[in-house]
Amino acid sequence: MVNRYPHQLVSDNASGVHPEVLAKFANVNHGHVTGYGADPVTREALERFASAFGKHSETFLLFNGTGANVLALKGMLQSHEAVICSDQAHLLVDECGAPEHFVGCKLIGVPTRGGKFGVEQIEAWLATDGGGVHHNQPRVISLAQATERGTLYSLDELRGIGEYARERGLLLHLDGARIANAAVALGVEFEDLAEWADVLSFGGTKNGLMMAEALVVLNPELLHRYPYIRKQGMQLASKHRFLAAQFLAYFDNDLWRRNAANANAMARRLAGGLTAIDGVRLCEPVEINLVFVQLPTAWLEALQCLTPCLAWRGEQQSEVRLVTSFDTTVDDIDRFIAAFGELASRH
Amino acid sequence: MVNRYPHQLVSDNASGVHPEVLAKFANVNHGHVTGYGADPVTREALERFASAFGKHSETFLLFNGTGANVLALKGMLQSHEAVICSDQAHLLVDECGAPEHFVGCKLIGVPTRGGKFGVEQIEAWLATDGGGVHHNQPRVISLAQATERGTLYSLDELRGIGEYARERGLLLHLDGARIANAAVALGVEFEDLAEWADVLSFGGTKNGLMMAEALVVLNPELLHRYPYIRKQGMQLASKHRFLAAQFLAYFDNDLWRRNAANANAMARRLAGGLTAIDGVRLCEPVEINLVFVQLPTAWLEALQCLTPCLAWRGEQQSEVRLVTSFDTTVDDIDRFIAAFGELASRH
Amino acid sequence: MVNRYPHQLVSDNASGVHPEVLAKFANVNHGHVTGYGADPVTREALERFASAFGKHSETFLLFNGTGANVLALKGMLQSHEAVICSDQAHLLVDECGAPEHFVGCKLIGVPTRGGKFGVEQIEAWLATDGGGVHHNQPRVISLAQATERGTLYSLDELRGIGEYARERGLLLHLDGARIANAAVALGVEFEDLAEWADVLSFGGTKNGLMMAEALVVLNPELLHRYPYIRKQGMQLASKHRFLAAQFLAYFDNDLWRRNAANANAMARRLAGGLTAIDGVRLCEPVEINLVFVQLPTAWLEALQCLTPCLAWRGEQQSEVRLVTSFDTTVDDIDRFIAAFGELASRH
Amino acid sequence: MVNRYPHQLVSDNASGVHPEVLAKFANVNHGHVTGYGADPVTREALERFASAFGKHSETFLLFNGTGANVLALKGMLQSHEAVICSDQAHLLVDECGAPEHFVGCKLIGVPTRGGKFGVEQIEAWLATDGGGVHHNQPRVISLAQATERGTLYSLDELRGIGEYARERGLLLHLDGARIANAAVALGVEFEDLAEWADVLSFGGTKNGLMMAEALVVLNPELLHRYPYIRKQGMQLASKHRFLAAQFLAYFDNDLWRRNAANANAMARRLAGGLTAIDGVRLCEPVEINLVFVQLPTAWLEALQCLTPCLAWRGEQQSEVRLVTSFDTTVDDIDRFIAAFGELASRH
Repeated sequence: MVNRYPHQLVSDNASGVHPEVLAKFANVNHGHVTGYGADPVTREALERFASAFGKHSETFLLFNGTGANVLALKGMLQSHEAVICSDQAHLLVDECGAPEHFVGCKLIGVPTRGGKFGVEQIEAWLATDGGGVHHNQPRVISLAQATERGTLYSLDELRGIGEYARERGLLLHLDGARIANAAVALGVEFEDLAEWADVLSFGGTKNGLMMAEALVVLNPELLHRYPYIRKQGMQLASKHRFLAAQFLAYFDNDLWRRNAANANAMARRLAGGLTAIDGVRLCEPVEINLVFVQLPTAWLEALQCLTPCLAWRGEQQSEVRLVTSFDTTVDDIDRFIAAFGELASRH
Repeated sequence: MVNRYPHQLVSDNASGVHPEVLAKFANVNHGHVTGYGADPVTREALERFASAFGKHSETFLLFNGTGANVLALKGMLQSHEAVICSDQAHLLVDECGAPEHFVGCKLIGVPTRGGKFGVEQIEAWLATDGGGVHHNQPRVISLAQATERGTLYSLDELRGIGEYARERGLLLHLDGARIANAAVALGVEFEDLAEWADVLSFGGTKNGLMMAEALVVLNPELLHRYPYIRKQGMQLASKHRFLAAQFLAYFDNDLWRRNAANANAMARRLAGGLTAIDGVRLCEPVEINLVFVQLPTAWLEALQCLTPCLAWRGEQQSEVRLVTSFDTTVDDIDRFIAAFGELASRH
Repeated sequence: MVNRYPHQLVSDNASGVHPEVLAKFANVNHGHVTGYGADPVTREALERFASAFGKHSETFLLFNGTGANVLALKGMLQSHEAVICSDQAHLLVDECGAPEHFVGCKLIGVPTRGGKFGVEQIEAWLATDGGGVHHNQPRVISLAQATERGTLYSLDELRGIGEYARERGLLLHLDGARIANAAVALGVEFEDLAEWADVLSFGGTKNGLMMAEALVVLNPELLHRYPYIRKQGMQLASKHRFLAAQFLAYFDNDLWRRNAANANAMARRLAGGLTAIDGVRLCEPVEINLVFVQLPTAWLEALQCLTPCLAWRGEQQSEVRLVTSFDTTVDDIDRFIAAFGELASRH
Repeated sequence: MVNRYPHQLVSDNASGVHPEVLAKFANVNHGHVTGYGADPVTREALERFASAFGKHSETFLLFNGTGANVLALKGMLQSHEAVICSDQAHLLVDECGAPEHFVGCKLIGVPTRGGKFGVEQIEAWLATDGGGVHHNQPRVISLAQATERGTLYSLDELRGIGEYARERGLLLHLDGARIANAAVALGVEFEDLAEWADVLSFGGTKNGLMMAEALVVLNPELLHRYPYIRKQGMQLASKHRFLAAQFLAYFDNDLWRRNAANANAMARRLAGGLTAIDGVRLCEPVEINLVFVQLPTAWLEALQCLTPCLAWRGEQQSEVRLVTSFDTTVDDIDRFIAAFGELASRH
């Protein structure tokens, strides 16, 4: 079969599905089972999550990342409370206001460096806030791990924020749309990353699944509302075994780890190749599968012919985001670097 | 492979996925394409919908039926308006209040016969309503075609309600969770069923797809809000080609028609077999793949061993709902009837 | 001054404000105090509420009855839960969907006799509900005391429902839009009526105040969200002392009792006069200030010239609601009865 | 009567009610009229608004400013759209998230100078926004006139923003919590200020009324939803004539103008006195009744004994906000300045 759709570097959701996921579909696709999650395939998938996150955790499978983040928040706070997050947080800027609409709360974006923020930024915001009934009350700290800038919180940083949250009576939400990339990069297990979190949005789609995310509730006191929130939030699949099957494939033989390891490695290779080219400057350390580089604005048009990508256009210099995927190959990178080098030399 | 999960008659979402759908996944699973619906697979799927529903229609692919119904309504009315629907409507009683929560409006359930209602019931309700600012203003009539009782509106009945709606300045929503079964049963095309509808929830999952529904907007004046509603409503898939692929398989070689025709035929066979048994009475005409029968309450326990099913337990007599699926076989039905006959003879 | 606006029997909100309320405004209208409720007038008013409802209670002053009911519910349940109320409940049918919109929950109207319902109707509804994540979970029972039909729950009936609620883990809300009329009619104190309630909407406007209602929280576990809910619910007055002043006047010298006693007595006088007229039949016992009578439909037009009133028009017989107020006089009633008798004799 | 509550400079809602308002209450407080706004007092008040804002305008009376702003927005945009406002806008930072909760939309705070922003700031934000379905779509520009910093948009500035809005298909909302102060300061009529606005929140409470605000709809295409929005938004008063009476008093003999003129003049006197004191620096031009000054942090504690006030505490220097009211007297100001001067001289 001809590959009609060439590899790109635009996003990790531009790629397709890992073949082991399709194989798992076939494997569970026989006979009839009870819908809405009361089936043996789901039971098995939830056991895998319990192994990964601990027996105190409880997991809900969902369709997509918007759903995972919004429903996570819905169960963590009331409408008069607030979420403190990065001013670049996906849930703040890229969900068409879904959290505000579905939870009815306010999101507070605090300034970040490299996509990260910490106790200092939270405290600074709390200090300017007047308190009292005129203001949404801070209730949840939401961190992306990894961040939208491709950076990582170390376990120490997570502990620092987690301890602060508990002292202040705040809850901690982790947006783990790329949590597999984070775990691989840090060389830790999921459970380590989730240690201080109350609820975690666990991504799968960006790392080789088709359409499957999970909401992992680590704080048992928050648990009771989520079954209803998932239904009311329009994220309860009827043929639920096919969400579960994706996660069975994901945990089998560490598919998640293999996929993320490849994407991360290809990003490092990409960054290495790019920074060897005169005029290109790395904007953030490349810790997962995202590469942010600054380059002359004059190159942008030609670059978009090599691969579509997100660009923040400046007058002289622009910034672009390049993303590798579970199926990005050494050959993809090397050919891109070669073509890019040629592009650079022409300008 | 052993069939670990035997066929049941509990629901059409207990079945799996038609093999042609899995094959289509494999077929589109190569290379990279733009996410969120701007890909060639989606383009092709949307063309199929335009062929089925007319060039004035515009279709949005979604994950599930809750999403299709709730988002359909969100684009049709404001929060101070009301939806008039059957008092047994799925969107009224089985969505954990998702329409009230996401649209913020009120749903008015009017009494039905055989799951159907008409101008008479709407007028009766409008007559008792005081009007004025103290009341949600009627804006949308929502019909299920086929209904939750397995019955059908004829094209004449649809026209009657549709003309009434236009005269009164009301909009018409069709919940088509089982619209393929309806089209096959009535021997008409989708376009015929949608003639008077402003927005249609187009089901796929109950008829052999994995997780894919569509929202078909037939009234162009309503169109502009839906792209944003889908995102804010947490129903925009990133790897969108895999929603599209399901519908490609669905329209290829009339898979939808073959699936629905089988389910409908098996329901008729089931009804025929059941009504030949003393003590069993059909509650509704069997027009699609749903069979409602009344039987002695004493049989219920044994019946649930033959197949799980929904039951409304009465003192002497109970009612049960049995559902056939795209993959229900003649053998399934005949063995069930035989076992059921034996059960009946034991009591 | 000429009384430009003659007394009517259309509603207890057609009347004006008791002069003692206006006097109290003048009394507190000097100097500057902190806004939003942190003022000495409010402090004094809240002490009166604490005297009336017990030291465990906490009261929030609001603008109107819609606000009181909707905000009460907002603090009692989550959006995936449900309120069980009368199918004639004001909050169900007369608030333009404000509870659905602001709380996002579902309201379940159960059938009533004389505006009242009890454990039997609740149980009947719970029995038909399938339970599970597809349905809003019952959380609050909301009773109107007095009801929209002018009837009363006895203390025994309240205890019966209250005990049932606690056994089932449900909360009890009382809509007390006419609670003063109820207390006077039953010869009990407010605290007696509130004994089993978790939250009470305490009406003032219909009984001689200008625009002032209160939300009395009797269950301390529910307390913490209400200060924020009031602000977010747009019901926090800045010049708060003028809400408080109304309640000071209300509790001073038992103004509430005098007002309600007059309205109730006038309703009894009205009912006595009307039922002495051939062709008029009382529809409900007259327990507070509402009189529902059935009369020939042919009389309706002439009646509306005597006083505007709510009418449910039937073919031969119609039902009308007549309402007395704190300022309805014996003369008002006697003149109305005389005119009505003449009207009747003409037909 | 002893003035138990001395005048302060904390807020214009710390003051009471102008005596002419109380007199008007007495004037309309007789007999019975239809509730919810269908009464002759309301009719007269609405005519006054039509005189002030033009015959194309339609006005809705409300309880408070939160209600006016939030309901205004509810009728101007859908939940997937966005409001562009000052990053210090009251509706963004001081309403406990009421707009997000009730409208479900997103508010975008753009940076301001002296509380004002213009086309430049709007364009800058629009340039960084990616557009597309992932983002709330800009729909409303909301300006405060006067601003929360006590500054004013000139008629030219308003026209500039208004023309820009119409070119871009955006709507213009004016938060007129202090619009009387603005009109007096600019020497213009209300109609001049509203020329480019689609909807205006018209404040009364801060300028001598008790609890009354209005929502003035200037764009007739937006009109039809507001009657229902007011009811669903819990802001429809039953004894509506007492909202209307406040505005009758307000427009009679230009009470609004007299009140605002006094407050503005007292602020200028206050600013003059303060800036004559060494160590005090004016932070914004004093255009209405708000005075922002910078002073040594060491003085704060003593200042709060002279009058409570809002303070933004810095290390060496702090900023405080002082507010004059309709009833602030020359004597109030002069005594405050004298005491303040003494305070300064002690440090």
